[in-house]
Amino acid sequence: MKFAQLGPVGAEIPVLVTDGASYDLRAVTSQIDGHFLESGIPEVQRLLDAGELPELVGASEMRVGAPIARPSALVCVGMNYAAHAAESGSAPPEHMVIFNKLPNTLAGPNDAVVVPKGSEKTDWEVELGVVIGKRASYIESVAAAADYIGGFVLVNDLSERAWQIDISGGQWGKGKSAPGFSPTGPWLVTPDEVDAQNVRLQSWVNGEARQDSSTSDMIFSIAHIVHELSQYMVLEPGDLVLTGTPEGVALSGRFPYLSAGDVVELSIEGLGAQRQEFVAYEEGR
Amino acid sequence: MKFAQLGPVGAEIPVLVTDGASYDLRAVTSQIDGHFLESGIPEVQRLLDAGELPELVGASEMRVGAPIARPSALVCVGMNYAAHAAESGSAPPEHMVIFNKLPNTLAGPNDAVVVPKGSEKTDWEVELGVVIGKRASYIESVAAAADYIGGFVLVNDLSERAWQIDISGGQWGKGKSAPGFSPTGPWLVTPDEVDAQNVRLQSWVNGEARQDSSTSDMIFSIAHIVHELSQYMVLEPGDLVLTGTPEGVALSGRFPYLSAGDVVELSIEGLGAQRQEFVAYEEGR
Repeated sequence: MKFAQLGPVGAEIPVLVTDGASYDLRAVTSQIDGHFLESGIPEVQRLLDAGELPELVGASEMRVGAPIARPSALVCVGMNYAAHAAESGSAPPEHMVIFNKLPNTLAGPNDAVVVPKGSEKTDWEVELGVVIGKRASYIESVAAAADYIGGFVLVNDLSERAWQIDISGGQWGKGKSAPGFSPTGPWLVTPDEVDAQNVRLQSWVNGEARQDSSTSDMIFSIAHIVHELSQYMVLEPGDLVLTGTPEGVALSGRFPYLSAGDVVELSIEGLGAQRQEFVAYEEGR
Repeated sequence: MKFAQLGPVGAEIPVLVTDGASYDLRAVTSQIDGHFLESGIPEVQRLLDAGELPELVGASEMRVGAPIARPSALVCVGMNYAAHAAESGSAPPEHMVIFNKLPNTLAGPNDAVVVPKGSEKTDWEVELGVVIGKRASYIESVAAAADYIGGFVLVNDLSERAWQIDISGGQWGKGKSAPGFSPTGPWLVTPDEVDAQNVRLQSWVNGEARQDSSTSDMIFSIAHIVHELSQYMVLEPGDLVLTGTPEGVALSGRFPYLSAGDVVELSIEGLGAQRQEFVAYEEGR
């Protein structure tokens, strides 16, 4: 199944997207969140089969929000594609590298992004996001990790490289959590509908190709990531795990950083596409 | 004012602690959270003055929970005391170093702590925690940062050093978020009641002194931290910011790491004391 959330910021309506239509899920859940992913899907199937899900009128005109509620944690894997590690000046990691973004950075896939105040190195990163489907703690094996995945999303893991690297003392989080820095969606796609370890992911800036790779190039697989994270922390239903970005970002030195007026587009096969216009910071905004 | 939350995990009752008594705040709020800190305190004062706050019967027998609801973010400053940076093998940082813990690591100040499965380097860190009182984004000056602080708490920023350092690829978060790794409390103390930049903070293991310093030794002050963070991210009411730990942890090589049976005690002048018994991980627990 494909889920989305449509409407103004803070008042999004959860929908099922199928056969080109959007079905209103408010009879089942107020939002696409961990509780819904754990327990709500059979009821959606039942109502769909019975023809009892109403179409959402005017859906195609609505703003697209992130397809999940704000998670309790947003955990990211860094340097998970060998060619990106190389362009960032690093060797491929021997151990999985993780860091966090603030959950309040979540934004809709097509929302305008404000280049943060004082930023000179705002950079894009197309990433496959994993939405946790049930509480994961000490998962017993890599093979068992699939049971804990509720779905997949497309995310732009935006970064301010000066803050992340130049003035960070080495810890990346400082450059990862500016407002709106995690455009997510358009859809949450359940695992049965996407071969997530083998899909193409791409990004463009002002129509020019930047990243173009496949999730099959990950150093640590999706299942490896979810299993290993669960040894170090408890992942909650609805939490979002980003799985790293392939080569082709501005940090490489091959492309300019983003500034007001730029347009970034991203897509992952089966997970939809994003388009963000970058705008200047305005005082008091 | 001093606030606490008393009762079983997940069913804590918010209280005002004053004159040795605990007053039930359920008529004002269901929990000590960002919304309460933003807007609920005048009503507590009014009810207290009117003699209309009921005492919570049996409070002294109740478990003490963390004095705040689970925050949307738990942001930590690393290496913020020069002597601790030195014992960790680092120079004092030129720039503020930040990382994150998962908000679900919050625990009561006296809850037993499970030494994580496979851990050999579990370490203590006494820290002053800052609870954000209102939404903070691009605070205009260091002097203005005080307006955004709702209160202060004592936190044990527990760490697994092998995960944080040896197998982290350099990013610390992997060793910071095991279950129960952020014992917090007993009290949230409002800024008018504690001179937070000038209080003694101490820790002990099995009764032997470990850390003993003053928050006046911070490299980056509390106000500096809150102001600077707000340039990189939006802090929400109820978010928790940890301000770093002084020297005297096991990572120094001077003391053994923690194992089952150890007892850690911590205190910060004016913010109360904690006592945690460390217990072994048990499968399926």
